[in-house]
Amino acid sequence: MDFFKVVSVEEGKRLLKENLRDYEFEIEEVDILNSLDRVLGEEIYSNIDVPDFNRSTVDGYAIKSSDSHGASDSIPSILNIIGEVKMGELANKAIKSGEAIYVPTGGMIPDGADSMIMIENTEKMDESILLIYKPISQGENIVYKGDDIKKGALALEKGRRITPEVMGVLAALGIGKVKVYKKPSFYIISTGDEIIDIEEDLTMGKIRDINTYALAGLIHKLGGEVVNKVIIKDDYNLLRQEVERALDLSDIVLISGGSSVGTKDFTHKVIDSFGGRGVFVHGVSIKPGKPTIMGEGNGKLIFGLPGHPVSSIIVFKTFIEDFIKDKLGVKDIAPRVKAIMDFNFPSAPGRVTYQLVKLKEEDGIFYATPSFGKSGMISLLSESQGYIVIESHEEGIYKGEEREVYLL
Amino acid sequence: MDFFKVVSVEEGKRLLKENLRDYEFEIEEVDILNSLDRVLGEEIYSNIDVPDFNRSTVDGYAIKSSDSHGASDSIPSILNIIGEVKMGELANKAIKSGEAIYVPTGGMIPDGADSMIMIENTEKMDESILLIYKPISQGENIVYKGDDIKKGALALEKGRRITPEVMGVLAALGIGKVKVYKKPSFYIISTGDEIIDIEEDLTMGKIRDINTYALAGLIHKLGGEVVNKVIIKDDYNLLRQEVERALDLSDIVLISGGSSVGTKDFTHKVIDSFGGRGVFVHGVSIKPGKPTIMGEGNGKLIFGLPGHPVSSIIVFKTFIEDFIKDKLGVKDIAPRVKAIMDFNFPSAPGRVTYQLVKLKEEDGIFYATPSFGKSGMISLLSESQGYIVIESHEEGIYKGEEREVYLL
Repeated sequence: MDFFKVVSVEEGKRLLKENLRDYEFEIEEVDILNSLDRVLGEEIYSNIDVPDFNRSTVDGYAIKSSDSHGASDSIPSILNIIGEVKMGELANKAIKSGEAIYVPTGGMIPDGADSMIMIENTEKMDESILLIYKPISQGENIVYKGDDIKKGALALEKGRRITPEVMGVLAALGIGKVKVYKKPSFYIISTGDEIIDIEEDLTMGKIRDINTYALAGLIHKLGGEVVNKVIIKDDYNLLRQEVERALDLSDIVLISGGSSVGTKDFTHKVIDSFGGRGVFVHGVSIKPGKPTIMGEGNGKLIFGLPGHPVSSIIVFKTFIEDFIKDKLGVKDIAPRVKAIMDFNFPSAPGRVTYQLVKLKEEDGIFYATPSFGKSGMISLLSESQGYIVIESHEEGIYKGEEREVYLL
Repeated sequence: MDFFKVVSVEEGKRLLKENLRDYEFEIEEVDILNSLDRVLGEEIYSNIDVPDFNRSTVDGYAIKSSDSHGASDSIPSILNIIGEVKMGELANKAIKSGEAIYVPTGGMIPDGADSMIMIENTEKMDESILLIYKPISQGENIVYKGDDIKKGALALEKGRRITPEVMGVLAALGIGKVKVYKKPSFYIISTGDEIIDIEEDLTMGKIRDINTYALAGLIHKLGGEVVNKVIIKDDYNLLRQEVERALDLSDIVLISGGSSVGTKDFTHKVIDSFGGRGVFVHGVSIKPGKPTIMGEGNGKLIFGLPGHPVSSIIVFKTFIEDFIKDKLGVKDIAPRVKAIMDFNFPSAPGRVTYQLVKLKEEDGIFYATPSFGKSGMISLLSESQGYIVIESHEEGIYKGEEREVYLL
């Protein structure tokens, strides 16, 4: 086994991107109705002007603004009503000075008009006579053709996460199908002689496979999919065989580590046994999560995660999420709240520390309490809502301090 | 048409819950692997002790702690190594004073031992002689049976949103299938003579249906599903026919309003034409979103949304999300960031104002700029990342102030 220096979190992220820089996620086309949370794999240009006609933003009358100048409650302007534009229909009559046409919100502005006076500022004397009580300026209450989005303009960037709002924009542009990145596919290999699957009987000394399910959740949350999951014993040949299969079927291979030192050695050797750069990170100065392994085999990412659920989750969120977001060019804002720390907490010198916390809200202010527990306890997972990050150069956390809590 | 008083946002939320208090969402069973973001429809009690045996949290030797007392670097304690516990196997040998058994992390503690000394603090003289360089106390480096979760204890509450961490907890408990609330089902009716669907040609005066797609996104994000979507002309009979069908097929009927006053009247009358309480809110003091209609027909919620996309999104997030979360008992923390406002902004007296903003991050600090634009512009949707809420009693926003920005 080679000797590796433990790298910093930043260096780990950098090495991951650098060593997998040639890997590309594929593109597929989806119906926009089913596109929530996918990532745009193409730039979207508008092939129309939005709106594609001059639209009213109010219910009222289309007029020449000059006809309203000088109008007031005491001396209204008087105009002739010469017609009405119906919703969804063409404005087929033009107006001249002294004339007005009724236009509803969203309706088309007739030729000759340069402003819309709101119905509230008018009074109809009879079917054809309109009084105007307020002066308005040119362009008032009108959205002009292309004002919103110009034909040919870049409307949405590649790498944009598709939100409900983006779905609305795509619909406005008449784009029913979009190119998105295929869901990154993961193959989860859980190793350890003590690990049994969820439906197996829990005999003495065994422990249920927790990581696979927590990782599957993280993968789904990230917008990825699990192509297969498997539990194997601590054995070099079994592991190599599974990784070989996994490299064929998925984008990323996760080896959720048995906790024994032996397994770590297997993992390292197995990764090095494929074509490619092999292991490029073995050990990261992160707490928890130090025994993290990153490697490249047959052009794909093979990632060795620590055996403890909390460590495994932290390492996934720190490195895999960062890697995928970088690859797809996503600029999501990590959901977080600011909270008052109600505890003192020392940092681990030279390591970035991730600490799970419980959150409590009182009068709109969040308070964070650390979720402590012996390593590997799963109740930490059920009672925590977020985590804080203490950088390696920091001394720790002081009670009363306000810090960002990233939501789980 | 009845005359309705415009109600406050809080009153609107209250009336919604009160008038639909008898409505219940159904429960179904899902595989935990596909349970991310679903809501638990049952309380989960642990049917096992976790862990179900005394486990080591380190690689080292199981000993009687009293045997280590007085041990130091210069005067180590000397013990006999009498065996090894293998991962996933029973510890079938007990220890007596003066003896030690090797146990890996996660391995079972043998009878007679009350502590684990880490391998780093020991030295093996030969296969059977162990030197101990450090005193340890009773219980050190051991997680006792049931320490994490006790058999019979409440592990997860009903109404809990299933996160990756919760999936891990369920796996640990050996629960492969859980009861969750069925996805709330929505039927979206988009009304307006000017509205055309996404694949239709955009002829003059028409406008594409944006709301349906944005609403579908919001529904999916909330964990719901769209059973059908339809566009109809402004016509009482057509609307009544669709709502009747919708009441049969879905939990909640959304009528995404044409902007005309006529349509609002139709919507009101249609809702009142079914059995039940009829319309109970017509108009809310919210900006944007005033022309919101809430009613109950045949025991189900019929909700009239404003025609403008931004208003429609704000109203959905404010009322429908709140309603569903309350019904399912979910206590999600709304994703948000604190940001410095880089603008002054007046409030709308007596109304709660929702203002879309763009976010910019610099050195870890967020700055918010309002997304202004004429009503109905869709570019507001593509350029905004969040929104701020200005309560009706507030004077407005001051430049330089720090406020919560809720993420879209």
